[in-house]
Amino acid sequence: MTTIDLNCDLGESFGPWSMGDDAAMLALVSSANVACGFHGGDPLVARRTCTTAAHAQVRVGAHVGYRDLGGFGRRFVDVDQEELTAEVIYQIGALQAVARSAGTEVSHVKPHGALYNAIVHHREQARAVVAGIHAVEPALPLLVLAGSVVQEEAHAVGLRTVTEAFADRAYRRDGTLVPRGVEGAVLHDAEMVADRVVRMVVEGTVETVEGDVIEIDAQSVCLHADTAGAVALATAVRRALHAAGVLVASF
Amino acid sequence: MTTIDLNCDLGESFGPWSMGDDAAMLALVSSANVACGFHGGDPLVARRTCTTAAHAQVRVGAHVGYRDLGGFGRRFVDVDQEELTAEVIYQIGALQAVARSAGTEVSHVKPHGALYNAIVHHREQARAVVAGIHAVEPALPLLVLAGSVVQEEAHAVGLRTVTEAFADRAYRRDGTLVPRGVEGAVLHDAEMVADRVVRMVVEGTVETVEGDVIEIDAQSVCLHADTAGAVALATAVRRALHAAGVLVASF
Amino acid sequence: MTTIDLNCDLGESFGPWSMGDDAAMLALVSSANVACGFHGGDPLVARRTCTTAAHAQVRVGAHVGYRDLGGFGRRFVDVDQEELTAEVIYQIGALQAVARSAGTEVSHVKPHGALYNAIVHHREQARAVVAGIHAVEPALPLLVLAGSVVQEEAHAVGLRTVTEAFADRAYRRDGTLVPRGVEGAVLHDAEMVADRVVRMVVEGTVETVEGDVIEIDAQSVCLHADTAGAVALATAVRRALHAAGVLVASF
Amino acid sequence: MTTIDLNCDLGESFGPWSMGDDAAMLALVSSANVACGFHGGDPLVARRTCTTAAHAQVRVGAHVGYRDLGGFGRRFVDVDQEELTAEVIYQIGALQAVARSAGTEVSHVKPHGALYNAIVHHREQARAVVAGIHAVEPALPLLVLAGSVVQEEAHAVGLRTVTEAFADRAYRRDGTLVPRGVEGAVLHDAEMVADRVVRMVVEGTVETVEGDVIEIDAQSVCLHADTAGAVALATAVRRALHAAGVLVASF
Repeated sequence: MTTIDLNCDLGESFGPWSMGDDAAMLALVSSANVACGFHGGDPLVARRTCTTAAHAQVRVGAHVGYRDLGGFGRRFVDVDQEELTAEVIYQIGALQAVARSAGTEVSHVKPHGALYNAIVHHREQARAVVAGIHAVEPALPLLVLAGSVVQEEAHAVGLRTVTEAFADRAYRRDGTLVPRGVEGAVLHDAEMVADRVVRMVVEGTVETVEGDVIEIDAQSVCLHADTAGAVALATAVRRALHAAGVLVASF
Repeated sequence: MTTIDLNCDLGESFGPWSMGDDAAMLALVSSANVACGFHGGDPLVARRTCTTAAHAQVRVGAHVGYRDLGGFGRRFVDVDQEELTAEVIYQIGALQAVARSAGTEVSHVKPHGALYNAIVHHREQARAVVAGIHAVEPALPLLVLAGSVVQEEAHAVGLRTVTEAFADRAYRRDGTLVPRGVEGAVLHDAEMVADRVVRMVVEGTVETVEGDVIEIDAQSVCLHADTAGAVALATAVRRALHAAGVLVASF
Repeated sequence: MTTIDLNCDLGESFGPWSMGDDAAMLALVSSANVACGFHGGDPLVARRTCTTAAHAQVRVGAHVGYRDLGGFGRRFVDVDQEELTAEVIYQIGALQAVARSAGTEVSHVKPHGALYNAIVHHREQARAVVAGIHAVEPALPLLVLAGSVVQEEAHAVGLRTVTEAFADRAYRRDGTLVPRGVEGAVLHDAEMVADRVVRMVVEGTVETVEGDVIEIDAQSVCLHADTAGAVALATAVRRALHAAGVLVASF
Repeated sequence: MTTIDLNCDLGESFGPWSMGDDAAMLALVSSANVACGFHGGDPLVARRTCTTAAHAQVRVGAHVGYRDLGGFGRRFVDVDQEELTAEVIYQIGALQAVARSAGTEVSHVKPHGALYNAIVHHREQARAVVAGIHAVEPALPLLVLAGSVVQEEAHAVGLRTVTEAFADRAYRRDGTLVPRGVEGAVLHDAEMVADRVVRMVVEGTVETVEGDVIEIDAQSVCLHADTAGAVALATAVRRALHAAGVLVASF
């Protein structure tokens, strides 16, 4: 039977400011990337999220980001390699203790926002992130975009990577994402997105904005949790995968 | 042979802002309370401090504080119990990963500044701190003022405590410290401080501001690292202990 | 014709985290207390809020709070008088420039959350707030609880105060509010709240939790904007005041 | 008589963390760029710095930076234009109120660190900074590198610029600075630096690392305050200018 992991970013509320419908999403995904307090989240939010994830039997990952709460980690920050490595170690360690106190554990790492985008091509920062994970726990898998620089750097030190595709993002012929801000970069039609995900998982292909069909290597599919309609979209994806005989389970 | 632990607060620099002469102090103490980034310190500072402490064979502790960088953790913050517990877990976990990546480990916990002072009497916050440590690692000892509410709460859940005395602080007849800000609260004469520490360790007594001699229970003596003259004072204490045949070693 | 000011707290979103329905509330109130970035809000949020307030012809005030974003300014912080004064000056100044750049100006000051509560009785902090406002602009009126220590301190230096009542809060016989957290502290029935506001404004009285009727001195009535149902409640209040022939206008 | 302005960055301490010898520098310069709390400084530090500057009759400017305290504003942050404009307005306004409360006023603006470097060439951010200043006060002069993009953008909206040279930095043939981190980028010999400044001011030239002599347009010379030897270097510059018959006075 074909299986696929569904991951999404959770625990991104901060103090009194709420973000996303975490409880609903936890019933639909198999892996949760929990914010570690640098781009979003705080200790109490993280602990509550881990507790709910543990009850839902959803795998917990450390969603590490730039130390830029005001920008929600969505702006590139030109941080030094040594500092970024220390920040990754710190964030993973903080979430490890929080997760254990909630009856679960950190089972993977996924960089957030602008950091995720930077390490697709920025070798220094990619190396810094890999070094941070490796220093904490060389067996922790890292969610990556297939073909990214960070994937290369991870393999160079023996760190396991898990490739992911994006359910609601348009792809270009070269396998990269159409940048946010470009018309059509984000797909909103739940049924269309659900069909794409089934095709990604079952056939290993995706149709690009140019109209080509390209191969896509995805061991996990990322759903967004912070948009209106996130729950409806995730529900449609989940239902379509079930109808196609695909089992949703963490990698 | 009598032994005593000397502890001090280190790793309190933040970004480009330096505080204290950490390298010099690490040659003089047996335990370092390393800031976890909430009241001071940052991931890179913490990692460098742990690395230096590991080389100096100085025990590392998590110096947890209020999330109040602007106030350096020196102002009481009326934080909820559940939030404080999560903040303690988060800070300890962050430092655990940082310490391991530096070749050492977190071996104790010491609350900082206003949090330390609050949990001498504030039962809710004391319970929150104890719950946080217990959730991470029930075997982690906690540095406390003898007779404090936090000591009671720690014992109630089976958490080990290590009592400490303050080398350069004046005591009152009831065993409490003369509050900072009161004339004479902080002692500056290195030789006088050194003599007091020897007496604390060898006789288990201290002379109060009222002129009485009281018993004092101290398994560790706290030296301050953030004042002018800190290194000279610590050197004098170390020398006096050696002359009195006392071995400085972590508890 | 009787007139009353309706004020509420706005601009408390932070980065990507949204709070309250500011646009809807701006159509219902006559004064907006705009967060200055310390307990909530940020420069961009503040500027957008001031722009919208200017279009809605709603008076803008500086909603100054403790520098405690993580706690949303809802926790007492034991900050020094000199520091608090500087923080008040800084916040008012920041909002003044933001407001002017948005075509309006800062016309009053209202402390937020735990700071508001503290200066009802905490003389040092009350003095610090008053000194801060006075240093920036002695003609800026300050919203206060009638009978509070901060009202005394303001009058002592000639600062104008505007007394306010709370639409949806239960009062005790001595004129103080039933503390949040106590059962019945916050009223949720929109029609009942609307009737109370009319009575406050027209008769100058309010019924207490003990069942007495006490006099209440209110030149402004505070509506909350950050709760579910805030808009419905404000709409009911506005309608009831209109029906009673009361004009809503800033003080 | 030839006159020149000497400017330096001050008020960059944060909470208990001290930076630079502000009192000594204020006796040597004619303009102080005071940190506004985003990259360094805090309300109390800013107020004390303005008070001291007022007594020393030194001109106060708003030293605006990225909202990146952890990085001391020394890392490029890819912030949006609209947000950066709001942040500039906010910082200037905050310092205006602080300065007025200290008996002085904000008389110029100087961007800090990575923001200063970015707007030499980054047109969007340059425009954002210019728009922010213009929105607060179109008559506020802006300190710029001659030939920079921000200078162009300032002139496009009628904002006055004041060009500056750097006393202790090596120049390249094209008039740009040798980047920090490159060997020889920063000059440390006080007498040599003093001679260069005299030549910049009197002849309007500077010798480059390639050995050429180029023209340099400087209405102000920037001295660094955050390095060891800053005071000695500034003293030497001041003395050499006096010997050459140049008057130090704000622009």
